[in-house]
Amino acid sequence: MKSVDLNCDLGESFGTFVVGQDKLILEHITSANIACGYHAGDHNVMSKTVKMAKEKGVSIGAHPGFPDLLGFGRRVIQTDPTDIYHFVVYQISALKGFCQIHDVDMNHVKPHGALYNVAAKDPLIAEAIAKAVYDTDRSLVLFGLSGSELIKAGSQIGLTVANEVFADRTYQPDGTLTPRTHNNALIHNIEEAVEQVLTMVKTSTVLAVDGSIIPLQADTICVHGDGPSALDFAKKLQEVLVKEGVKICEVKGRNTLT
Amino acid sequence: MKSVDLNCDLGESFGTFVVGQDKLILEHITSANIACGYHAGDHNVMSKTVKMAKEKGVSIGAHPGFPDLLGFGRRVIQTDPTDIYHFVVYQISALKGFCQIHDVDMNHVKPHGALYNVAAKDPLIAEAIAKAVYDTDRSLVLFGLSGSELIKAGSQIGLTVANEVFADRTYQPDGTLTPRTHNNALIHNIEEAVEQVLTMVKTSTVLAVDGSIIPLQADTICVHGDGPSALDFAKKLQEVLVKEGVKICEVKGRNTLT
Amino acid sequence: MKSVDLNCDLGESFGTFVVGQDKLILEHITSANIACGYHAGDHNVMSKTVKMAKEKGVSIGAHPGFPDLLGFGRRVIQTDPTDIYHFVVYQISALKGFCQIHDVDMNHVKPHGALYNVAAKDPLIAEAIAKAVYDTDRSLVLFGLSGSELIKAGSQIGLTVANEVFADRTYQPDGTLTPRTHNNALIHNIEEAVEQVLTMVKTSTVLAVDGSIIPLQADTICVHGDGPSALDFAKKLQEVLVKEGVKICEVKGRNTLT
Amino acid sequence: MKSVDLNCDLGESFGTFVVGQDKLILEHITSANIACGYHAGDHNVMSKTVKMAKEKGVSIGAHPGFPDLLGFGRRVIQTDPTDIYHFVVYQISALKGFCQIHDVDMNHVKPHGALYNVAAKDPLIAEAIAKAVYDTDRSLVLFGLSGSELIKAGSQIGLTVANEVFADRTYQPDGTLTPRTHNNALIHNIEEAVEQVLTMVKTSTVLAVDGSIIPLQADTICVHGDGPSALDFAKKLQEVLVKEGVKICEVKGRNTLT
Repeated sequence: MKSVDLNCDLGESFGTFVVGQDKLILEHITSANIACGYHAGDHNVMSKTVKMAKEKGVSIGAHPGFPDLLGFGRRVIQTDPTDIYHFVVYQISALKGFCQIHDVDMNHVKPHGALYNVAAKDPLIAEAIAKAVYDTDRSLVLFGLSGSELIKAGSQIGLTVANEVFADRTYQPDGTLTPRTHNNALIHNIEEAVEQVLTMVKTSTVLAVDGSIIPLQADTICVHGDGPSALDFAKKLQEVLVKEGVKICEVKGRNTLT
Repeated sequence: MKSVDLNCDLGESFGTFVVGQDKLILEHITSANIACGYHAGDHNVMSKTVKMAKEKGVSIGAHPGFPDLLGFGRRVIQTDPTDIYHFVVYQISALKGFCQIHDVDMNHVKPHGALYNVAAKDPLIAEAIAKAVYDTDRSLVLFGLSGSELIKAGSQIGLTVANEVFADRTYQPDGTLTPRTHNNALIHNIEEAVEQVLTMVKTSTVLAVDGSIIPLQADTICVHGDGPSALDFAKKLQEVLVKEGVKICEVKGRNTLT
Repeated sequence: MKSVDLNCDLGESFGTFVVGQDKLILEHITSANIACGYHAGDHNVMSKTVKMAKEKGVSIGAHPGFPDLLGFGRRVIQTDPTDIYHFVVYQISALKGFCQIHDVDMNHVKPHGALYNVAAKDPLIAEAIAKAVYDTDRSLVLFGLSGSELIKAGSQIGLTVANEVFADRTYQPDGTLTPRTHNNALIHNIEEAVEQVLTMVKTSTVLAVDGSIIPLQADTICVHGDGPSALDFAKKLQEVLVKEGVKICEVKGRNTLT
Repeated sequence: MKSVDLNCDLGESFGTFVVGQDKLILEHITSANIACGYHAGDHNVMSKTVKMAKEKGVSIGAHPGFPDLLGFGRRVIQTDPTDIYHFVVYQISALKGFCQIHDVDMNHVKPHGALYNVAAKDPLIAEAIAKAVYDTDRSLVLFGLSGSELIKAGSQIGLTVANEVFADRTYQPDGTLTPRTHNNALIHNIEEAVEQVLTMVKTSTVLAVDGSIIPLQADTICVHGDGPSALDFAKKLQEVLVKEGVKICEVKGRNTLT
């Protein structure tokens, strides 16, 4: 039986600034990537989000990003791998504190935004992140773009990895995402997006923009938590996967394997 | 045989802003209170400072403060105990990450600046901090002003506590520090300051400003890390304590008791 | 003919964090208090908000607050009047830059949140703020709680002042607002709130919670920009004032008097 | 008679974090580039530094940088020209406030660190900065790397520009600075550095690393304010220039021309 994880970025509010519809989206996902205070989230939001995810039985992960609240972690800050290693350790560890006080295990780490993107392509940054995760807690699962440098670095150091695919993004013949600057980068139609997920999960392939069929591993699907149709999409995806006999569950790290 | 701990605030640099003479002062203390990124310190500085302290065999503690880099944590921010509880959990946990990657135990927590001061007097804030420490890691020692609300809250919840006394501050008949606004608040003379420490450690009393002798527990001495005479004082204090047969060692938490 | 100003806090978004419904509320007010980057707002939001206000013919004011994005400027930070003087100069001047590039005059300054509240009661802080406004641009109007220390300090130094009253807050016999901790602090009913405004504007009095009628000057009304009924209230207030023959216009500073 | 300006970055302290020896260096320079709170400096430091510079008769300039206190503005943040335009307007305007309260004109703007470097090469960013300066105050002088895109953009829009050269950096045959990653990037010897300045000022040429002599305009010399030998170098440079008959004075903007 095929299985797949549905993950979503949560806990992105900051102080009185409210982002997302965390409570509703938690009903439809299996992994929550929780912001750790550098690009979004704060200590109060982190605590509340860990508690909510635990109550809904959703697996908890750290979602470290560049130290850039103004840019919401979506802008690259030119820095060295050692700095990145340290700030990933910091952010994972801070979130672990809230897992500790709410008596729940952390299961995974998924880098956020610009950090996710550079880690997909830059082997040195990928390695720094993988090492930060491994050194902090080697039982954690590392999420990265399917087939990316981050996935390679995670496997290499000995972490369980989860290959992430996107429902609403098109793919190039080489397996990378079509850049957002291209016209055909996004899949706006919900049915089409769900269909692409089904294909990826069931066949481990995807139809690229040039019509070729390319291999691709789909361990976890990125579900957006914000925007008007986010909730509709999450519901629809969950329904169809269940109907098609796909098991929806998190990728288990070594803490949660037993 | 009498024993006492010598503690100092370390890791207070931030990015390219350099504070203190950490490497030198580590030679003369037994406990390092390491800033956690809210009032000072950053992820790179935290890692470096934990590593240095470990190499010198100095016990490591978290030094959480108000989120106020501009004010260096020396200004009260009016907030509620829940917010304080959460940001103390956050800061302790972030530092634990660096203890983890450098394979060393954390031993204690000492609140910084304005947080230390309000925790000495406000029972609700004291309780929030004590609970944050306890919930994060009950084996940690909680440092607070000797006889303060923080010490009471720590004892009450079941933590090992360390009563802190000051070498260079005078005391009121009720055991509180003379406010800095008073002329006679500070002891500028190094010999006098060392003498006061010796009396406190050996007799568990101190001579108050009105000439009365008052009881006071001295588990740990606050050693300043900055300023021109900080290092001289630390050296002198260490010398005299050793000569007088006082054992200088950290207050052991439950992790380090065995 | 009686006249009154309707003011609202605008430009409180930060980076990708969106707050308020600025475009809609601008249709119903005469003065916009624009956040300056310390408690909310950023350089992009400031520029956009100044531009929108200019296009709608709404008077522009700076809305300086404590440096506390996490607390949205609603928490007092214990600091000295000199620090406050400097950060008010900084924030007003930063916003003036955006008035300059959009070729529009700044008309007023209204302190935000906790800064507004402490300035209402603390004469030294009130004086620091009034002096910051005066030294930066003496043609600006200073907004403050009706009859407060800030209004006194502004008048004293030679600024035009605008006494602010609240539609949805009840008043004590001494003219102060009923603290939010009291059950009867808020007026939830829109009609009642509009009625209170009409009375204040037309008679320069208000009915206090003990039934007494007290004098009070109403130069400007605080209109909230956020929350589900904010827009409804603003519309209703505007309608009723117009119907009752009250002229709605900004309090003119010396730049805009000619 | 040849003349040249000596400029130095000042006001880089932040809160209790002290950087530089501003008071001493002010004795030996003619233009102070004052940090504006984004990469360094704060509202108190800005006020103090403007006041000191005025007292010493040193010309005042804004020194805007990327919003990155942790990286001291030395790291590129990937962002768009509009964002840069807005944050340069913000920072210049904030500093103008302190010129206003201390009754002194602002004379110039010099971008800081990574912003300076990208503005030297990227025409769109150069243009955004030049436009920000022009729109905020067209009488200001724009400082940029001699012959850089920033200088071109400033001239193009109609600003007075000042070509900056470096005493302690070597030059490539194409007139660019030798990258710091190269062994021969820096001139460590003070006499050599002073000699290079003299040649640049008197002959408008410099000896490149390959032995060729290349043209280069030297309107202003960058003097470092930090580091052990900064002050010695500034003194020596001042002495030699005076002895050699070079007039040391600021590049006058249109405010200060009369």
